[in-house]
Amino acid sequence: MSRFAGLRLLDSKTERSFDVYRRKMEALFTMFTSQPIGFVSSPYTDPSEIPKGLGAQHQADGVLNILPQFEPGLTDIEGFSHLIVLWEFDRSQGFELVGAPPSDNRPHGVFASRSPRRPNPIGLTIVELLRRQGAELHVHGVDMLDGTPILDIKPYLSNIPAERLRRGWLAEAEERKQ
Amino acid sequence: MSRFAGLRLLDSKTERSFDVYRRKMEALFTMFTSQPIGFVSSPYTDPSEIPKGLGAQHQADGVLNILPQFEPGLTDIEGFSHLIVLWEFDRSQGFELVGAPPSDNRPHGVFASRSPRRPNPIGLTIVELLRRQGAELHVHGVDMLDGTPILDIKPYLSNIPAERLRRGWLAEAEERKQ
Repeated sequence: MSRFAGLRLLDSKTERSFDVYRRKMEALFTMFTSQPIGFVSSPYTDPSEIPKGLGAQHQADGVLNILPQFEPGLTDIEGFSHLIVLWEFDRSQGFELVGAPPSDNRPHGVFASRSPRRPNPIGLTIVELLRRQGAELHVHGVDMLDGTPILDIKPYLSNIPAERLRRGWLAEAEERKQ
Repeated sequence: MSRFAGLRLLDSKTERSFDVYRRKMEALFTMFTSQPIGFVSSPYTDPSEIPKGLGAQHQADGVLNILPQFEPGLTDIEGFSHLIVLWEFDRSQGFELVGAPPSDNRPHGVFASRSPRRPNPIGLTIVELLRRQGAELHVHGVDMLDGTPILDIKPYLSNIPAERLRRGWLAEAEERKQ
């Protein structure tokens, strides 16, 4: 498929101004190339070892080894109990828009699931920060493979009130399993 | 700085196997190039319009316009009340490892903040899904600029128990403000 196929979307309603149109044109050419800020040390060396599916618990400890040139970016990170880690599905090839996840035998859209086969192969894991040793962040709750490239780390700041959270097909699959 | 500078990190402790070493070498060459899966329609056209700093509330409604070729990936997304949107800081140049955020007059590391000037310019916003119309996701709580490229959407599944959450310098800055 041509990388310009998406331009057919640019209808008059969305294009409120030439500036927005120009930005979308440019975005197709100038999207960033990702670079690792570090690598995960994890007990998992094969995808089959990682707990998956309904009720899977991620209890493994691991280390986020940040590259020395990025270490100043960790300043004051010790104060946060939980971190959002963005990383690359570096052993996943291509993407699948609709597929059956390990937690259900029915297919769902990739953007309604945590499938590794995504248009942009970015994974997200919330970890608990146990301690920092220089450029090493010792964390609890890893679900990445050993050697996974880390793209970004952000502090986990707040929750959505539990009573307002709906979990779609995942909640339904859990119901059926009971 | 050379893109190979990070290789100095590769000590014997981290390199548990040749396989991991090889993967790290390859990652420096084969990281993915991001592509937009869609663009944000937002009321904000200038960064100064976006609520920032302590207690900032993101109450704006917006639309995630997904490109038609990715629409099948939205299958079953309607069941989720909240979505994690990953997007590109496409109007941010370069990165700053330590800087003062709008919520504090003291500098903090980029990985302990939500600064737009990150090594990988990926933004993250939790939005509430109001409704879906084909490839348009109408959402509440946008803090992106109009025209921002969307990289990924994931369902928001669970919370960290509030009593276990620590918020570091942000909580301290809030204390000082009171």
